[in-house]
Amino acid sequence: MARDIKGLRGVVPPVVTPLQGDFTVDYPSFTRVIEHLIAGGVHGLFFLGSTSEVVFHDEATRDRILAHAVGVVAGRLPVLAGVVDPATDRVIGHARRAASLGVDGVVVTAPFYTRTSAAETVEHFRCVAAGSPVPVVAYDLPVSVHSKLARETVVGLAREGAIVGLKDSSGDGGGLRYVIADMADRPDFFCMTGGELDVDGALLMGAHGVVPGLGNVDPGGYVRLYEAAMQGNWAVAKAEQARLCRLFEIVWCGVPRTSAGASGVGGFKTAMRAMGIVATNTMARPQRSLNAEESARVEAIMRGAGLL
Amino acid sequence: MARDIKGLRGVVPPVVTPLQGDFTVDYPSFTRVIEHLIAGGVHGLFFLGSTSEVVFHDEATRDRILAHAVGVVAGRLPVLAGVVDPATDRVIGHARRAASLGVDGVVVTAPFYTRTSAAETVEHFRCVAAGSPVPVVAYDLPVSVHSKLARETVVGLAREGAIVGLKDSSGDGGGLRYVIADMADRPDFFCMTGGELDVDGALLMGAHGVVPGLGNVDPGGYVRLYEAAMQGNWAVAKAEQARLCRLFEIVWCGVPRTSAGASGVGGFKTAMRAMGIVATNTMARPQRSLNAEESARVEAIMRGAGLL
Amino acid sequence: MARDIKGLRGVVPPVVTPLQGDFTVDYPSFTRVIEHLIAGGVHGLFFLGSTSEVVFHDEATRDRILAHAVGVVAGRLPVLAGVVDPATDRVIGHARRAASLGVDGVVVTAPFYTRTSAAETVEHFRCVAAGSPVPVVAYDLPVSVHSKLARETVVGLAREGAIVGLKDSSGDGGGLRYVIADMADRPDFFCMTGGELDVDGALLMGAHGVVPGLGNVDPGGYVRLYEAAMQGNWAVAKAEQARLCRLFEIVWCGVPRTSAGASGVGGFKTAMRAMGIVATNTMARPQRSLNAEESARVEAIMRGAGLL
Amino acid sequence: MARDIKGLRGVVPPVVTPLQGDFTVDYPSFTRVIEHLIAGGVHGLFFLGSTSEVVFHDEATRDRILAHAVGVVAGRLPVLAGVVDPATDRVIGHARRAASLGVDGVVVTAPFYTRTSAAETVEHFRCVAAGSPVPVVAYDLPVSVHSKLARETVVGLAREGAIVGLKDSSGDGGGLRYVIADMADRPDFFCMTGGELDVDGALLMGAHGVVPGLGNVDPGGYVRLYEAAMQGNWAVAKAEQARLCRLFEIVWCGVPRTSAGASGVGGFKTAMRAMGIVATNTMARPQRSLNAEESARVEAIMRGAGLL
Repeated sequence: MARDIKGLRGVVPPVVTPLQGDFTVDYPSFTRVIEHLIAGGVHGLFFLGSTSEVVFHDEATRDRILAHAVGVVAGRLPVLAGVVDPATDRVIGHARRAASLGVDGVVVTAPFYTRTSAAETVEHFRCVAAGSPVPVVAYDLPVSVHSKLARETVVGLAREGAIVGLKDSSGDGGGLRYVIADMADRPDFFCMTGGELDVDGALLMGAHGVVPGLGNVDPGGYVRLYEAAMQGNWAVAKAEQARLCRLFEIVWCGVPRTSAGASGVGGFKTAMRAMGIVATNTMARPQRSLNAEESARVEAIMRGAGLL
Repeated sequence: MARDIKGLRGVVPPVVTPLQGDFTVDYPSFTRVIEHLIAGGVHGLFFLGSTSEVVFHDEATRDRILAHAVGVVAGRLPVLAGVVDPATDRVIGHARRAASLGVDGVVVTAPFYTRTSAAETVEHFRCVAAGSPVPVVAYDLPVSVHSKLARETVVGLAREGAIVGLKDSSGDGGGLRYVIADMADRPDFFCMTGGELDVDGALLMGAHGVVPGLGNVDPGGYVRLYEAAMQGNWAVAKAEQARLCRLFEIVWCGVPRTSAGASGVGGFKTAMRAMGIVATNTMARPQRSLNAEESARVEAIMRGAGLL
Repeated sequence: MARDIKGLRGVVPPVVTPLQGDFTVDYPSFTRVIEHLIAGGVHGLFFLGSTSEVVFHDEATRDRILAHAVGVVAGRLPVLAGVVDPATDRVIGHARRAASLGVDGVVVTAPFYTRTSAAETVEHFRCVAAGSPVPVVAYDLPVSVHSKLARETVVGLAREGAIVGLKDSSGDGGGLRYVIADMADRPDFFCMTGGELDVDGALLMGAHGVVPGLGNVDPGGYVRLYEAAMQGNWAVAKAEQARLCRLFEIVWCGVPRTSAGASGVGGFKTAMRAMGIVATNTMARPQRSLNAEESARVEAIMRGAGLL
Repeated sequence: MARDIKGLRGVVPPVVTPLQGDFTVDYPSFTRVIEHLIAGGVHGLFFLGSTSEVVFHDEATRDRILAHAVGVVAGRLPVLAGVVDPATDRVIGHARRAASLGVDGVVVTAPFYTRTSAAETVEHFRCVAAGSPVPVVAYDLPVSVHSKLARETVVGLAREGAIVGLKDSSGDGGGLRYVIADMADRPDFFCMTGGELDVDGALLMGAHGVVPGLGNVDPGGYVRLYEAAMQGNWAVAKAEQARLCRLFEIVWCGVPRTSAGASGVGGFKTAMRAMGIVATNTMARPQRSLNAEESARVEAIMRGAGLL
């Protein structure tokens, strides 16, 4: 059952992809992750984002992941799929396959590896929008893509209908605020923050939702934060945000033995293993998985945040 | 016929991938490019490098490109294939397919998009080497990958046998010199510079060859430069290098209308079109192709360098 | 009259330094700027920050600026002075001279130009604190300094008493939130945001104040925003912030003819000239000053924000 | 006795500034450094460069350093002085004081800390040239300044007479080669490389000299390398360069306990202490000085390069 993602609101976690010890996807765990998130009250699900280790998965594996995800969700929530690869026609290829598998929208970054100009980046989104059977959400993630989507780029693409929303993981709160203001007359366009730590502030400025990696671990926390903000209960929102910030410290337990990236998603997986949701905390190669000592630190933080 | 790439020496151009106006590969032009390079006297061919727009091509297209290339080369020269994608298992997948298609070695970057630590990067190369049926060459390209392969990383991987060579496009001449010195007792390991402009200096410091994008346009120039250097005729090498530097100015004719990347490879394609080798100067999407005015500037530079 | 800056709260603008056409300081205008800010209800004044073009001024000029400022303020408000130069002993020299001129605290960046490690940066702040007769505030400005003050660095220095506050212009809202949380038991330590665009969010997360360059133009706006936040009137705070964001667009009127830096402070000076506060909008060399057309754009934005 | 620096050629070391344990300049050691370099056969001396820890010294200390240096040199060699600070009028102030103290030329970077556009950078050099009583040399050091001097900037300033030379520490060999080629008709303009490791290659491409920090330790090595290159003895030049590269490894002995900057200049000072030239290896605050164990590593490397 197709869902319209225009005007999407709320908490839309980027869903982790559980792996088995041999680095293949652990589908029973994956099912449990999805049910855990739906039970947590989230408003949509974003598969194959950076938190899902999307760029570690080849075309065939991505297809299996999306097919499984769409099947488990079964229309209960809108489903977004990341279609992340360096350049335009590959992204279109991913988008077509994702759409045929039943996702409701695709999430697209600027080109990477190749050095692309701002004008070529606009053209990239136009081509992908023209080639994708489902709506396109722009994904601004300079830490991975090494370029920033300019306010003019996002607003221009939004007004011409090439994109229906923005997931802003740039950390540039001022820039997000301007996009929200520029698009205030277009409530069908959504702006979500990709950060975990500033969600109360982002919602205060008018963001329409949040795409928190930490939402894999504690979806209910983000849902409570979102609902408090929607009701104007900013003191409640702030207190929930403060608790989630303490919990977020699970993302640094692997560093410096692992990379920052492996420590972050690895922290989520380790926490979900402690909660009985996933079977292993294995990270895709060449990333290191958190070891026993690092896992113990993750669990201590979870207890401090009232989660274990 | 398999060729041993250990101890490879000389000029190994990263071969451009000619496109038709509809962005599909133009195979008749591609054949002409390969014959042009072989006729120019080069010592090996590197397909699916950055100059080949590798990251714009999906798995199936890459396979067709390599199958065609291997068929045309027909064992006359060693064939390297770039297996460039963000993470380990995808790279292994590319390497296996490339090997099955008959290439003699694969060229591998560090992971990108994902933020990987130095230790994880070492593990990446080890995994790829273990998974690849053919030898691995390390490809250091910080401008695209956004990390630099450390001297210790390269030398360690070389000594343990995980890599048989280095293509250094980092622009860090001092770093290259240290790797060459550290590996001086191992003549089967090769170090090539990926730059076009400093080849005389690189060969003076002991580099074993060059992988020049501009070699698509003027393979003979780089072959003469290489041979002069091998004979210790540094004045001749320097003069040839100076001429090639003038010619290299074709890479900036598209900027700022196009990105730097599109202007560079686009300059090569435009020059090769003027020489009757390729049918169009089309760049993969979303890159802009050089227009008539920019192409005229390319041709003027070619005439100044004695090429038209 | 010395003021204790411990526990400082509120709006503390980084005061622009008006220049005459010959690039010398325009002291009558400077007096008017200070009176304008005090009349606007601000809670402190920060001289010789980046917005004051501090690094353009030599030792003697800085002394004259501070002597004038202290004289005009005459104890009505706490006075902070930036002591910005690349390395430790020069910063100490600035701090001693500033203290002798009567400032209440000094604002100190990490070393720049030189590449300093995190441990050496800690030592830098310790040395400056030991050498400065007045309290030290840490100034985190990666866009100029090219390093970020880590949470551990700031909290460690705060707990050992080397710094009494933080001006965070890093744009890293999550990082600021952690420092605030880590120092929650120490209300004498203050954390202020240096950004103009996210002040409602920063105050919601518990920041103790704001150091807005735009506060030179509209001090009353930031005071209203601060007071609304202190009263928990987040809707009012948000609306005021939205108006200030529209006004902030004056900072881009010079680009690309001028640098971003010259356009920003130049926009403030141009606005203050339109309000009759400063005589010229001259920027220190080699920065370009806004021309008539660019100034007209500034004034149009001011009218749109209800300021002219 | 004034020396004309136009058409300067050869080895021009950036002279270290020896310190006493209390961080003040050790003038007797400084005298020995200068005599050591002159005895080594160098062709000019560059005081107050980055290797001299210029930005750690305030105006009065810089004056004393230059007065001492000019007195010791006593006209035997051309004397260049770095006038490094963030912005134009301060640089002019330094240049005037340096000129009045008898230096033959000043070495000027682009503005730093402040974000300056390319056009403003051109204006910076023009203003400094107009305000300096002695000729100006452009200093390209992106690692500290965080911007690169474009080929067009350097060549334009050279042709209009604003600068008489370039010290290129950018590591961009291709860029240096283009400047040399563009200015080939103007032998009074000099281009020197600031790198230690690629001097043979730089001289092969036509660079007019070298400004090697390592020349403080082994001036004779760089003089031999330069002379061999001038005679076209490239095999000799290469061998000398290879030996100097081994010696250069002294710059990494402090890392990671110290910053890279402190380890580099600290390595030079430690080596010179071992040679009896300077009394301490003290680095300006907040940099850490090499300890006994690190110093032992420096000395082992020196022995390996035939220097102790």
